Amino acid sequence: MEANDNTVYIGKKKPMSYVLAVVTQFNNGQNEVTIKARGRSISCAVDVAEIVRNRFMTDVSYKDIRLTTEEVEGENGPVKVSSIEIFLTK
Amino acid sequence: MEANDNTVYIGKKKPMSYVLAVVTQFNNGQNEVTIKARGRSISCAVDVAEIVRNRFMTDVSYKDIRLTTEEVEGENGPVKVSSIEIFLTK
Repeated sequence: MEANDNTVYIGKKKPMSYVLAVVTQFNNGQNEVTIKARGRSISCAVDVAEIVRNRFMTDVSYKDIRLTTEEVEGENGPVKVSSIEIFLTK
Repeated sequence: MEANDNTVYIGKKKPMSYVLAVVTQFNNGQNEVTIKARGRSISCAVDVAEIVRNRFMTDVSYKDIRLTTEEVEGENGPVKVSSIEIFLTK
């Protein structure tokens, strides 16, 4: 995953932290914001996207949604984890 | 969510149970299989789709991926949960 100014990575915080981050990006003039997550955080990424669209910015829509598999370093060598990229646009 | 023969609902079982269900649908002659999940099961749905595509049926691709919000009955009245629909085709 490459880092971009308009990318929000989902971690262990509560969904509202990431909702705020996405809304802030749009309010700062971005026309597209990407939400990225891996493994168990994927459910949270979907929550964040849906909360942004339904509660805060109803003019935002899904431009694309991509599912991939990435290899990350685990405790016992490389492990494969699923990932999601949600491309939001307004 | 409407039930269809070619729809696999993700619940609390291990991912491999659902991978087997998807592969079986394709092997029974379906050209399209839909994976549906809500809430915390969304991560598992993505795992299932990626395992099917990368390990079992490399000719299967994503036709569409849809994110929505559904209202379900919770212990204290209706609650909103995110859901995912992953449309697989070969």
